[in-house]
Amino acid sequence: MVKLNSNFAKLKSSYLFPQIEKKVNDLKAKQPDADLINLGIGDITKPLPKPIVQAIVTATQELEHDVSKAKYGPSVGFSVLRKAIAENDYLGLGIDENDIFISNGAKCDISGIQELFDINSKLAICDPTYPVYIDSNVIAGRTGHYQDGKYQKIVYLPCEEKNNFFPKIPDTAVDLIYLCSPNNPTGIALTYGELKKWIDYAIQNEAVIIFDGAYEAFITTQNTPHSIYEIDGAKKCAIEIRSFSKKAGFTGLRCSYTVVPKELIVQNTSIREYWIRRCETKFGGVPYPIQMGALATYSKTGKQSIEALVSEYVDQMKTLTAGLKSIGWTFYGGVDAPYVFVKAPGSSWEFFDELLTKAKIISIPGAGFGSHGEGYVRLSAFAPKKDIEIALNRLSGIYTCVTQ
Amino acid sequence: MVKLNSNFAKLKSSYLFPQIEKKVNDLKAKQPDADLINLGIGDITKPLPKPIVQAIVTATQELEHDVSKAKYGPSVGFSVLRKAIAENDYLGLGIDENDIFISNGAKCDISGIQELFDINSKLAICDPTYPVYIDSNVIAGRTGHYQDGKYQKIVYLPCEEKNNFFPKIPDTAVDLIYLCSPNNPTGIALTYGELKKWIDYAIQNEAVIIFDGAYEAFITTQNTPHSIYEIDGAKKCAIEIRSFSKKAGFTGLRCSYTVVPKELIVQNTSIREYWIRRCETKFGGVPYPIQMGALATYSKTGKQSIEALVSEYVDQMKTLTAGLKSIGWTFYGGVDAPYVFVKAPGSSWEFFDELLTKAKIISIPGAGFGSHGEGYVRLSAFAPKKDIEIALNRLSGIYTCVTQ
Repeated sequence: MVKLNSNFAKLKSSYLFPQIEKKVNDLKAKQPDADLINLGIGDITKPLPKPIVQAIVTATQELEHDVSKAKYGPSVGFSVLRKAIAENDYLGLGIDENDIFISNGAKCDISGIQELFDINSKLAICDPTYPVYIDSNVIAGRTGHYQDGKYQKIVYLPCEEKNNFFPKIPDTAVDLIYLCSPNNPTGIALTYGELKKWIDYAIQNEAVIIFDGAYEAFITTQNTPHSIYEIDGAKKCAIEIRSFSKKAGFTGLRCSYTVVPKELIVQNTSIREYWIRRCETKFGGVPYPIQMGALATYSKTGKQSIEALVSEYVDQMKTLTAGLKSIGWTFYGGVDAPYVFVKAPGSSWEFFDELLTKAKIISIPGAGFGSHGEGYVRLSAFAPKKDIEIALNRLSGIYTCVTQ
Repeated sequence: MVKLNSNFAKLKSSYLFPQIEKKVNDLKAKQPDADLINLGIGDITKPLPKPIVQAIVTATQELEHDVSKAKYGPSVGFSVLRKAIAENDYLGLGIDENDIFISNGAKCDISGIQELFDINSKLAICDPTYPVYIDSNVIAGRTGHYQDGKYQKIVYLPCEEKNNFFPKIPDTAVDLIYLCSPNNPTGIALTYGELKKWIDYAIQNEAVIIFDGAYEAFITTQNTPHSIYEIDGAKKCAIEIRSFSKKAGFTGLRCSYTVVPKELIVQNTSIREYWIRRCETKFGGVPYPIQMGALATYSKTGKQSIEALVSEYVDQMKTLTAGLKSIGWTFYGGVDAPYVFVKAPGSSWEFFDELLTKAKIISIPGAGFGSHGEGYVRLSAFAPKKDIEIALNRLSGIYTCVTQ
């Protein structure tokens, strides 16, 4: 008699977005004319730049005449793209094309990378953070049951106001460490100094760091590393995952990459060889036209478009944070990431409700990203500038008096 | 100290294709002018039909102006494509769009579907067959060690000449059954009667069948099911996986689908709900333009192109089998699948060597697909017609005398 993977039953219901949707719909039912502004957005709001569109179109047209481009491509990605990534994003860091693996979205590799490691690996995961680190390990069976707001076997790394939202090095030895920098939802990027502590810890404890740099393009602080490999020793202990999603408009096009350096050796085995075998067995590569679209982000006009795109979002970040400052709110992030983590006067959900009913603004309760996200809401600079301005106007009308 | 997933070390080295490559390269080194014909091809050889190219181009161009199409799409696929599949490929079979899940290639879902089931599930897998069924379960830890040509915990289902290459129902109870029909490499499709036996077995033993129909489009025999759901009861015990790869030129474009019917209930749980959760946690959907390309295969001009494409391959199948018949060879398949399984006078590799050196023809040793593939080689009708004709000419020159 076949049985199910009982770990699925251990997954918490993903109630966050359904719950938000319900509350929004309830409000719409009561006030059909309410002009809602969505500052909860975790997705792109600007269309795909022309040079990328053109590259995908050209590559697709080739398929009508050149079957060699339509055939199975390499599961690890086309060499030309891997090389461009190494030469552009890792210049001078000792990463070459063989260290780069093209994937169909950061989520897929972030959730799949755990397969390379022992089922009893001890996990350390930031709180709050992107839920996929936990959920993929729940399904695999590494976390134990969810009890009193925690999975029993996870070592949570609280990201709290008192520590500037930097995760604290654990007292115990852990095997796999998930770091998201800039972090979603706090919007805080790890500094050189903070990241160095983790590298030192990982080398000393023979741990591996999974470094999720999906929001790297939004870093504006001068002295903040864009890649973990900027820190000495990282190639021996870290896997880095980056994406074209947010910086180049690829959320729906699905293209990302994972860096597994040749120097990353565990139990005398090259992790890279295992990852290649995993790609070949369980993945078939990213479509040729999509890879050519990603490649176009490294062309002259492509780079210009991406820079323009990111700087528009950064401009929105600045508008949002300047507005929140002017009404005297306490918030974090919004400098190296498109997210602002706003301190709530009460609980996350109470503040969500207040913003929704009083200002008709949709936010994301921080508690949805982990128990240490309680007491915050996430606002997003992906929202169109006009929406951000309207939202700020409403907020200043409601809150200025309160905070003075 | 982090440890690796020790199951990776249990994987047999995938020596088949590297070994073939080495032998071919050795021959090329000795005889640089040798005019090699590749009848080993397991990939498309005809370019992407125009209506599909146009659909992908149009969808890509939309992304420059309409950000809603460029955003995250549903992880399970766009409703319009799911609906088209249900209405075209499953007409009258009681499958609706909610049963269909769009994926980035059959390999990905074939290797991922095992995650839904208990780690101690007993597996039954055909021999010879597509190696991913086994390898994905090796990595997951369900197979035990490889010893004496077998993984200890797998119940192998021999597909042998004496049984018309139909797998035999096992004597013991198994939990998960992988069936590939038409089977790669034997080229044999299961009949209604054979498939009915498996449905009966699965229902009686509360087992689940993973039915891989990647080569469904090549079935030409009238009385052979194209879908497992043509058999009563299948919706209660079977998951079906199909692909646009071979029939529509999508091998490099990566689009397939998995059918998980609502009637498939295990331990009072809808498998479909687990699959949705898995898609949302570990997958981000197929790019919008690629899904629109797949959708175009159901348009009037799309259907015509696909039919023309498949019928060219079928025509090549007929040329190949007619030629092999005329030289008196014993072979199977080539009627409902683009593969012909040719009986070798000796071992698979001996015959491979003989064809390579005597006729300059590249084949695939059947032993590479499982121990019961020993004594056969796989020839492919994907090879261009001209190549098939040259190959047959050479073979008839060499072998006619031998077999008469």
